[in-house]
Amino acid sequence: MDDLYAVIMAGGQGTRFWPFSRQAKPKQFLPVISEKTMLEETIERLLPLIPASRIFTIANRDQTAQIKEICPFLPEENRLIEPQGKNTAPSLLLATAAIYLRSSQAIIAALPADHLISDPHRFRHKLTAAAWAARQTNSLVTFGIPPSFPATGYGYIQFKQSAQQHIEGEPFYPVEMFKEKPDLATAINFLQAGNYFWNSGMFLWQVDVFTHELAQAAPEMYASWPQIISALENNDARRIAEIFEKLPAISIDYALMEKARQVLMTTGDFGWSDVGSWSSLLAVWPPDAQGNSVRGESLLLESTGCLVLSPHKFTALIGAKDLVVIDTPDALLICRKDLDQKVRDVVKYLHDRGQKELL
Amino acid sequence: MDDLYAVIMAGGQGTRFWPFSRQAKPKQFLPVISEKTMLEETIERLLPLIPASRIFTIANRDQTAQIKEICPFLPEENRLIEPQGKNTAPSLLLATAAIYLRSSQAIIAALPADHLISDPHRFRHKLTAAAWAARQTNSLVTFGIPPSFPATGYGYIQFKQSAQQHIEGEPFYPVEMFKEKPDLATAINFLQAGNYFWNSGMFLWQVDVFTHELAQAAPEMYASWPQIISALENNDARRIAEIFEKLPAISIDYALMEKARQVLMTTGDFGWSDVGSWSSLLAVWPPDAQGNSVRGESLLLESTGCLVLSPHKFTALIGAKDLVVIDTPDALLICRKDLDQKVRDVVKYLHDRGQKELL
Repeated sequence: MDDLYAVIMAGGQGTRFWPFSRQAKPKQFLPVISEKTMLEETIERLLPLIPASRIFTIANRDQTAQIKEICPFLPEENRLIEPQGKNTAPSLLLATAAIYLRSSQAIIAALPADHLISDPHRFRHKLTAAAWAARQTNSLVTFGIPPSFPATGYGYIQFKQSAQQHIEGEPFYPVEMFKEKPDLATAINFLQAGNYFWNSGMFLWQVDVFTHELAQAAPEMYASWPQIISALENNDARRIAEIFEKLPAISIDYALMEKARQVLMTTGDFGWSDVGSWSSLLAVWPPDAQGNSVRGESLLLESTGCLVLSPHKFTALIGAKDLVVIDTPDALLICRKDLDQKVRDVVKYLHDRGQKELL
Repeated sequence: MDDLYAVIMAGGQGTRFWPFSRQAKPKQFLPVISEKTMLEETIERLLPLIPASRIFTIANRDQTAQIKEICPFLPEENRLIEPQGKNTAPSLLLATAAIYLRSSQAIIAALPADHLISDPHRFRHKLTAAAWAARQTNSLVTFGIPPSFPATGYGYIQFKQSAQQHIEGEPFYPVEMFKEKPDLATAINFLQAGNYFWNSGMFLWQVDVFTHELAQAAPEMYASWPQIISALENNDARRIAEIFEKLPAISIDYALMEKARQVLMTTGDFGWSDVGSWSSLLAVWPPDAQGNSVRGESLLLESTGCLVLSPHKFTALIGAKDLVVIDTPDALLICRKDLDQKVRDVVKYLHDRGQKELL
């Protein structure tokens, strides 16, 4: 499809992979899964379907400099700079406007820069189908991930199973409601009900559908649309910064998707993971017979279920069980696997103490 | 007592404090307990009782260079060099001969360089009493440590409780037998019996009692006594090396103490610890309210009973329980507290792989 564009949201500040990730090097700029950065993986996964000329990125100025280094083959003008971090809604407003000026007929796939997709072939197939669905039905389209456990760390998408329609051979369902991250009991109910999938944070829209839905869902935000178009046409970065200044810092989920009238969901059955925490890597890095996933020279005795990333020194574990061990030149993390969400508390502690060099 | 000499056995190669201790920096040369090295602590503990002129050390050539740096106040000629590491019996044969040439009436206290004594005042009092006992009774004298648990990692001294005698106000008991490290059941029996104390590895003797007992316990070793005396008189290091070459590599316990006819034991009630493993430091470094002993900048969340030595970087523990964490510039150890004896297996692994830089 010649009108399919992608915008890669690369502005994340992820703290969950501390101390490996830092403010200056968030997850998308690190080789978490393979030897390549997650951003590279994300873009290279698209290239068989979407040429570099139709792939955009959006991130802050410093991050965009890194994107240029990592992906020099992307056209300069496709690397959009957000004047300040204001969550995904303002970013995608800007990106959609920029792409609109390239092609008013564009279908835009908004994709995070730091997700793992283990079956890229299938992903491209679903992306194509979703693009056609966005065009044919004038809907916003999203991918729902079939839940493998009652996660409390994801939002859910409630969909109408009975109203399935097929587009390009793939099933699409009308979305009934976006649900915030549930508590465990609610998550279990969701799983039993069967028509609640995880919100993947990946969305597609045709530009005029986006503006149409935005006008209704977030009229105050929609009001800045013509201003952004005009500022982009005049290549006026200062004006864009002024507009951004006034936009609310909210997510596209909250500003648009949850309130939109017509949203379709299709199954994200392409080996997705948001790789949202250290322990999630245990499912990604092939573990050995003792269930340990290790990177770096090491010796593990009587140790099971451990994730070890210690590339700079010899590391010995004795009797360790279900531990995450991350060693970097200036910080060491040892964390029980099931408590890895608390890494944020460490980052907050360092932040509160002003230890910027460790953030 | 003007004839009281000390010889500090500083030739140990301890591997149990890997990766903090290395072949080139064994425990006695490291600041394990305080800011001072254990060797300094050992010698400074003696100085109120024994002047530096009567304190000797024995270690290999490289170690002796370190001793010179750490304790420059010791006379050059008191730093004895063992030509090769042959366990404690040959070392103490050489040291006793060297001190004999200084004073034929010497009482010699042979003391490890890497033990902790938390009550040095009491220690000096007991040492004085033990020296008088060695002189008055013509016995070898040793300190037995009242066991606080059925340890399987120490040898035991069986003594005749009923034959107690007092010297300088302290009780002394005839030793019945030295016992090798027992199994747990035997250790429990020892504790219940009440007349089995831990072998501290600290001994005192008058020179002529030493030679007299050695002649009977180890005649082939005693045969080299006049040769060593002669080599020392001629300051003939090559000759000493030749003699050493032929001596068996055995401990003084095995060569002499176990076979000697007259050995007295007194109670080593001066806060002794051989600081024989990482977990033993938990009893030495004051723990916080959560039972963690930490050196280095760190944050511990939901963590208890951990020993953390990470002086070079910020260290975060989340949900860690009873772990030893030792970080050094080129090696990291994470070890369950009760498995810290297995640190030797790591050292053996590195040795077998020829990774000398980590040993």
